[in-house]
Amino acid sequence: MNACESILGLSPYQGGKPIEELARELCLTKISKLASNENPLGISIKVKKAINDSLSSINRYPDGNCFELKKAIATKHNVTSEMISLGNGSNELLELIARVFVSKQTDEVIFSQYAFVVYPLVTQALGATAVVSPAKNFGHDLDSMLSMITTYTKLIFVANPNNPTGTLLTDKEVYNFLKQVPEGLPVVLDQAYFEYLNIDDSAIQWLSEFSNLIITRTFSKAYGLAGLRVGYSLCSPLVADFINRVREPFNVNFTAQVAAIAALKDDDYLSESIKVNSDGYEQLVECFKSLHLNFIPSHANFIAVEFDDAMDIYNALLKEGVIVRPVEMSGYLRISIGTFEENAHLIAALNKILC
Amino acid sequence: MNACESILGLSPYQGGKPIEELARELCLTKISKLASNENPLGISIKVKKAINDSLSSINRYPDGNCFELKKAIATKHNVTSEMISLGNGSNELLELIARVFVSKQTDEVIFSQYAFVVYPLVTQALGATAVVSPAKNFGHDLDSMLSMITTYTKLIFVANPNNPTGTLLTDKEVYNFLKQVPEGLPVVLDQAYFEYLNIDDSAIQWLSEFSNLIITRTFSKAYGLAGLRVGYSLCSPLVADFINRVREPFNVNFTAQVAAIAALKDDDYLSESIKVNSDGYEQLVECFKSLHLNFIPSHANFIAVEFDDAMDIYNALLKEGVIVRPVEMSGYLRISIGTFEENAHLIAALNKILC
Repeated sequence: MNACESILGLSPYQGGKPIEELARELCLTKISKLASNENPLGISIKVKKAINDSLSSINRYPDGNCFELKKAIATKHNVTSEMISLGNGSNELLELIARVFVSKQTDEVIFSQYAFVVYPLVTQALGATAVVSPAKNFGHDLDSMLSMITTYTKLIFVANPNNPTGTLLTDKEVYNFLKQVPEGLPVVLDQAYFEYLNIDDSAIQWLSEFSNLIITRTFSKAYGLAGLRVGYSLCSPLVADFINRVREPFNVNFTAQVAAIAALKDDDYLSESIKVNSDGYEQLVECFKSLHLNFIPSHANFIAVEFDDAMDIYNALLKEGVIVRPVEMSGYLRISIGTFEENAHLIAALNKILC
Repeated sequence: MNACESILGLSPYQGGKPIEELARELCLTKISKLASNENPLGISIKVKKAINDSLSSINRYPDGNCFELKKAIATKHNVTSEMISLGNGSNELLELIARVFVSKQTDEVIFSQYAFVVYPLVTQALGATAVVSPAKNFGHDLDSMLSMITTYTKLIFVANPNNPTGTLLTDKEVYNFLKQVPEGLPVVLDQAYFEYLNIDDSAIQWLSEFSNLIITRTFSKAYGLAGLRVGYSLCSPLVADFINRVREPFNVNFTAQVAAIAALKDDDYLSESIKVNSDGYEQLVECFKSLHLNFIPSHANFIAVEFDDAMDIYNALLKEGVIVRPVEMSGYLRISIGTFEENAHLIAALNKILC
């Protein structure tokens, strides 16, 4: 980890100084953080009100069972509360799920090359064996993943849309994949960026057909609550019960529960998030095209862009006050889609650096 | 778990319905929750302001390294930030610490009978062997604990003040114990209720002498932030680094970090918490004496009280709108010290039930 990464906390297991401190150190007046695929809109007014109204209760322990939040999620997705598990971000759920199914060194976990960085990390943390399927056009090669299944396979992770590439598998592709996975082998369908697709929620309907399917979602992206840490999984009540047994009793904090319930009701904020993202996508893509930069067409709230020397560009952008993310994909930087102003800041900086 | 326990979420690994729902079901107009050793004062005005001022940033991920919060804790205790680990409540830290040192079935974890319920739970979760030292006058028998150390011992938990008994070991007793524990054997000194003692902070000074000492503290009690989930440990930088490696990257949420920093600066709230607690202790003890009830003199924010049939009293109190906690100590209920009004509610209910 170099000094810049240290300052910015780019390693998921190491934090860093706050942005304000970085700005002071670099004598910058404006910082655009386009590094963590956060929602650039800031807090929803309705969420803010809900948090404010609930502050007098933060001296009390949270509801360890997240009764009201589960009820709200269950209503939204037309599932039962018994199918829902809550996590301190979906990040925690990915770890909890792995802990349920994976324990031995010989246990194998299948995931795609260029997928979410947490999959190899949790596999390694459990001392299990990672089986990495080579990417196909930067996305998942589901046939390759199927061919890698052995009697040692204990878990499969599929991110859709994928991070950091933004690639998308169609519903048909995922469904056909699930049809071919052995019945007892759990598949995590990580849909952290699902809301940005703005499409029908087919995956939820598959839960009745595939008892080995575990869908994960998060409030950290389109719902704008990354700071509060709340994500959820949907799966069979049996698997949900197993996940529940390995979690901390109060893993989701009180304010996060209150905020998530309010966020689920705030359709306007969600629509605005999706609109800002699609507008921003057009704005950035136009820039990348005009600068003759290769990028991977994205279905999420970020774009992976290719540069001749990605780390030089990363550092040059940093000096202009624009923070993006180096990724484990040689030659690429992952750029989160920001507000119009943040995108304009990036575009001006790129033009200055590259032209 | 009976119906009442289910409603109230008494099992630490199972939640329940919110108090409001319980009140509706029981047709109660007033509920006094004296079950979870929470701070009855509610939120500190300064913490509330800090949270409000920071709400516009909850769309951003928390600082995974808790840079500012560590700085504030380091300053308070005159230690370095490298000695601090943060957890989603000290509860999470107890689990993380156990995961660092305990892995095999033959690994032994020593703790006292009648100590914090999380010690046996984390031991069991890791498939290790619990070695339970019989209580002495309801508190820790440190000589017995020392005699139980074998080459298989991997971790010792000492709660001081102890929960659910409220008993206290003197600094001298703990220091002499630490002197006799083998150098490489980690000892967790769980001081969740330390602030209520209102005494000098001797334990912190022992850290330079005992590299195997891990002190845990929490913001859930005297600081009044149970809902936000933040606790910390102090230990050698080497051990802190190990703890850091097994935690989730964003285990402590953004609002919790902001609130904890503000809480550390709010001496008035802390003083008021301690005063309300000591006043409430006198108020409750006077009642217990007048009712000829046995209780264990407590150094924390709760009192363990003996009843002829504890579960009958528990249920009768519930019908009066007073929620207390049945504990793994036959014949006893643990009663948290509330506000003057909450204590008066309990006293009136006990008088009604017992007289």
